[in-house]
Amino acid sequence: MTAKMTPEWIAVDWGTSNLRVWAMGPRAPLAEAQSDAGMGRLSRDDFEPALLALIGPWLGEAAMPVMACGMVGSRQGWFEAPYRAVPCRPLDPGAAVPVAARDPRIALRIVPGLKQTGPADVMRGEETQIAGALALGAADGVICLPGTHSKWCHVSAGEVVSFQTAMTGEVFALLSEHSVLRHGMAGDGFDDAAFDGAVAEALSRPEAFAARLFSLRAEALIGSLAAPVARARLSGLLIGLELAATRPYWLGRVVTLVGATAISGLYVRALAAQGLTARRLPATDCTLAGLTLAMTCEDIP
Amino acid sequence: MTAKMTPEWIAVDWGTSNLRVWAMGPRAPLAEAQSDAGMGRLSRDDFEPALLALIGPWLGEAAMPVMACGMVGSRQGWFEAPYRAVPCRPLDPGAAVPVAARDPRIALRIVPGLKQTGPADVMRGEETQIAGALALGAADGVICLPGTHSKWCHVSAGEVVSFQTAMTGEVFALLSEHSVLRHGMAGDGFDDAAFDGAVAEALSRPEAFAARLFSLRAEALIGSLAAPVARARLSGLLIGLELAATRPYWLGRVVTLVGATAISGLYVRALAAQGLTARRLPATDCTLAGLTLAMTCEDIP
Repeated sequence: MTAKMTPEWIAVDWGTSNLRVWAMGPRAPLAEAQSDAGMGRLSRDDFEPALLALIGPWLGEAAMPVMACGMVGSRQGWFEAPYRAVPCRPLDPGAAVPVAARDPRIALRIVPGLKQTGPADVMRGEETQIAGALALGAADGVICLPGTHSKWCHVSAGEVVSFQTAMTGEVFALLSEHSVLRHGMAGDGFDDAAFDGAVAEALSRPEAFAARLFSLRAEALIGSLAAPVARARLSGLLIGLELAATRPYWLGRVVTLVGATAISGLYVRALAAQGLTARRLPATDCTLAGLTLAMTCEDIP
Repeated sequence: MTAKMTPEWIAVDWGTSNLRVWAMGPRAPLAEAQSDAGMGRLSRDDFEPALLALIGPWLGEAAMPVMACGMVGSRQGWFEAPYRAVPCRPLDPGAAVPVAARDPRIALRIVPGLKQTGPADVMRGEETQIAGALALGAADGVICLPGTHSKWCHVSAGEVVSFQTAMTGEVFALLSEHSVLRHGMAGDGFDDAAFDGAVAEALSRPEAFAARLFSLRAEALIGSLAAPVARARLSGLLIGLELAATRPYWLGRVVTLVGATAISGLYVRALAAQGLTARRLPATDCTLAGLTLAMTCEDIP
């Protein structure tokens, strides 16, 4: 039988697809757990049971502080935490929204996301990673968080000045898994040279993008386009189109990438071809540093 | 009880999503039927039963000539009809491929599609509509067949010289029904002014496309973007991006649109804003005229 382990507080990253929790000790996580109980598959009454299923073993008699970020605070989430408007610091002392749980052992607060009115844009969860990245030494300049919805953020003097979302990861998933292109993309493998060529193509001729997609299918049908080449070209076309749209963000700037290893690697590669050396920070480190900051902020009376 | 009706032959338009059949008289269809037994949901052994379910009542003692076009002739179809290479006439006497059916009352032939090696592209079904459009008076120039996979075809002296596919309809369906954008697009209604603005935006700044998509979601979340505006803007962005990629096809050319009323109307509108008056032909008329030509060609000894 495992010894009873009681953390000081619990960190929660609750996105659309996944729920991740960490039992936090004085300096580092003591334990972690995760499930696929993302916001996207939960009704309002499902959130507390989904959280308890993971953190139940870490709860004691007293109310446990729980700090959560991500889509859990959206309109379709557990409780809507109103957006804060940029320009602003990514986290604000006292802004985390207390949420009443039925279980008295949970003292939950949710970090609010950020909004920008012109052009309209929103984020939930990335503000916490941005705060964490700055705490971990990210320089003023641009922080890019690639993923399902990539975010590009101008950061200056500790504030998020402006940001821009590109749906690159979601579009890649839809096209590679649900469109006619899926037939030529099964399996693993990724052709770096094909990726590089497609990034350059989309950046130099974004107007030709719509003519490039179906060629991935046609070349497989009448030629011999291999799946790793097709997948890499689709990825390169979409990331190239994202870089074309976000050029004002990265051109001549110091860029820090916050993301998982594989996806960050693609962005490093694409930016390097444009003469930029991007610094990388692991997404999970930034999330935990940010949630720790949010927890600390809240402790200030 | 209905009187027994025996057509001279049967015309079949068999695409990925639908199966449509017509009992053909000397001059015009005597009857028609359709089902959702498209190629995409059929295994090889399902094709003959799916066809018989619709045309069974029209069959007599003798073998009935049946002329089919579309994805039924693809590798995943009933029988693969090898592509013909452009430049070539859209239909070729004798090129329709005879397919053995188990039922001796069916004498089926499938019209082959067209392929282009550089840049790689393919079509199946549209070659029949192009032949029909030319028979119905479409001028030399450019024939555009908008839809799930829009085709732009240079036609000169009765030949298809080159063509270009854009996956506009499929991408619109994926984004409006399966991406995060679906939340703001439910219902009917379509804002023409929003469409016009988005077409112009995508044509003049295709490099900004990736930055425009998520704004449809963000404006709904923090503003009050109405669904008919969001849907029209998504449609306009995608059609604008298609027009940006196919500019060499339509710029300064005579354009004939072959398609259903609603989708053709959008392309007429988008091209009109570029100073082009496109002629329209109904897709079904072109399909039937083309299949009739294929039937006639085959009758030449």
